[in-house]
Amino acid sequence: MEYRKIKDDDKDDHDVASDLESLKGKSHTVAASNIALATLGSGGSTERINWKRKGVVTCALTILTSSQAILIVWSKRAGKYEYSVTTANFLVETLKCALSLLALTRIWNNDGVTDDNRLSTTYDEVKVFPIPAALYLFKNLLQYYIFAYVDAPGYQILKNLNIISTGVLYRIILKKKLSEIQWAGFILLCCGCTTAQLNSNSDRVLQTSLPGWIMAIIMALLSGFAGVYTEAIIKKRPSRNINVQNFWLYVFGMAFNAVAIVIQDFDAVANKGFFHGYSFITVLMILNHALSGIAVSMVMKYADNIVKVYSTSVAMLLTAVVSVFLFNFHLSLAFFLGSTVVSVSVYLHSAGKLR
Amino acid sequence: MEYRKIKDDDKDDHDVASDLESLKGKSHTVAASNIALATLGSGGSTERINWKRKGVVTCALTILTSSQAILIVWSKRAGKYEYSVTTANFLVETLKCALSLLALTRIWNNDGVTDDNRLSTTYDEVKVFPIPAALYLFKNLLQYYIFAYVDAPGYQILKNLNIISTGVLYRIILKKKLSEIQWAGFILLCCGCTTAQLNSNSDRVLQTSLPGWIMAIIMALLSGFAGVYTEAIIKKRPSRNINVQNFWLYVFGMAFNAVAIVIQDFDAVANKGFFHGYSFITVLMILNHALSGIAVSMVMKYADNIVKVYSTSVAMLLTAVVSVFLFNFHLSLAFFLGSTVVSVSVYLHSAGKLR
Repeated sequence: MEYRKIKDDDKDDHDVASDLESLKGKSHTVAASNIALATLGSGGSTERINWKRKGVVTCALTILTSSQAILIVWSKRAGKYEYSVTTANFLVETLKCALSLLALTRIWNNDGVTDDNRLSTTYDEVKVFPIPAALYLFKNLLQYYIFAYVDAPGYQILKNLNIISTGVLYRIILKKKLSEIQWAGFILLCCGCTTAQLNSNSDRVLQTSLPGWIMAIIMALLSGFAGVYTEAIIKKRPSRNINVQNFWLYVFGMAFNAVAIVIQDFDAVANKGFFHGYSFITVLMILNHALSGIAVSMVMKYADNIVKVYSTSVAMLLTAVVSVFLFNFHLSLAFFLGSTVVSVSVYLHSAGKLR
Repeated sequence: MEYRKIKDDDKDDHDVASDLESLKGKSHTVAASNIALATLGSGGSTERINWKRKGVVTCALTILTSSQAILIVWSKRAGKYEYSVTTANFLVETLKCALSLLALTRIWNNDGVTDDNRLSTTYDEVKVFPIPAALYLFKNLLQYYIFAYVDAPGYQILKNLNIISTGVLYRIILKKKLSEIQWAGFILLCCGCTTAQLNSNSDRVLQTSLPGWIMAIIMALLSGFAGVYTEAIIKKRPSRNINVQNFWLYVFGMAFNAVAIVIQDFDAVANKGFFHGYSFITVLMILNHALSGIAVSMVMKYADNIVKVYSTSVAMLLTAVVSVFLFNFHLSLAFFLGSTVVSVSVYLHSAGKLR
């Protein structure tokens, strides 16, 4: 029965529009299959369910992330951002919170309230939840300062350091091992992504001054640490319902983003209103960011940060390919080379699995 | 005793100037260790000797190839080629022939003349030896025509197709298997080398017309086929002394290059003389090409075409790094990325060995 449910979810796999429904369905399945896990122990079919679930959330994340980048290009074509980014971020967190509650309501109706899916929590459980939100806020603040040292395309290239920092922190903090072949794949992922983004001005990044490099490395570490820490929180209690964990993560996200509104955009919001400059694309972007955020949490729960990094990297390449058709982009030789390297690295990650 | 001799050779390992002596020493050891192989069978120490020998010839090839490229840059800085390239090629083949005979004389003096080291040959053995020389000549002739379709930097990039063609023909003709990880490494080697060579005009290569692509692919296949065929010839009779095999290869090389002199440079040679325009650098380049040529044969005998391709690719990267110090070259971000990918691919080739 578990197997069928997951199978039904598969249909939604490639349909972003129905992802909301799909996510709700998934949470339901998750709760049920956790019970199955607890009662039946781990057998071949449980493994297959885990594998399928991992595949579904990874595909969802890849598709959502690549459509996210396309929406950004689209909105840039349509003109400059007119809305305040902090209010949009706040709404994204609020929407994620609401979706988590919606999914929970369905689960409570079907399975009743259990220890694992009740919303109430203890101080011990909840005290770590503000940390990822705080780290991201700190990283976003730093982002304003790094542009004193590198230009925007240079920053895009330096952001690939995230891949390495995530791998290293994943190893150190979560104490999970990658095989040597998988490490080789991870280094290649970083090189491939960077190669795919090369353009005639990329060499300028090598002239970045020492403070610029230090900031870039700190930002990569913050971002990697936030990701790995989120995985640690979510995986600490495997039987805990993911929607409850998400709810608490996003509540603190709302709180930190409210602070950001006050610090950065108080005047604009007070004078022009909260929703000033919102358009149809803005709404689509908020919806997309919310669903991507939930997909990230799901990947953290059912897969790991490494899978997340691969998924978002492949999404970057997908975006470029789709942009050829949508926006008449030209792909460079560097893009083909980088994409090939990324593809080989994905293969190596799976071929190099530790037995 | 065999082991000690090989060990002594190791000292010469990083000294191009003494490579001639080293090669002679090696041939000697080779003849002797072939006998050892035949009489003692394959044991642990034989394996170690093989491994060491493979390492020595591979290092020699890498160092010779990279110094070759540096000599080319040096000679370009010194001015245009004044000498005729065909006469230089002829002298390279002649020098290789002479060095093979010199090595053989030493071996005859030490071990006497045996079936495996006698110079005389049968029609059946010798009939295949002209084929590689003919293939290279044909490829060199095509080289003049491909520049109608691509510029010189574009051709440098397309030459990396050699890597793939060598791998494919190695698999098909020699029927040797690479593991999946090694294939991944080989694709990465091709991507990494190309990435390292990227510059702001590289994208032009994507606009190469269909005839240009077809010629590039034919040239890659010719070059790959010549390499793989040479390996097949040399490995066909493992106990046969490599210097005898080289002698016959190079005799036909001399013959085909004599034809090339007549076709391409007859007037220049007749009017200005055979050695017109030769300089100290020209002599060094001829010496270097001769030693590299012998090193290639050695790698074919004791390792294989795959090792040869890795060795010359790593040499290309070494050249660039050395050029930073010698000629104040600037390394690009693409070079760093490509080098990292090549390094990982070298690791994968060794980590992915079939058991």
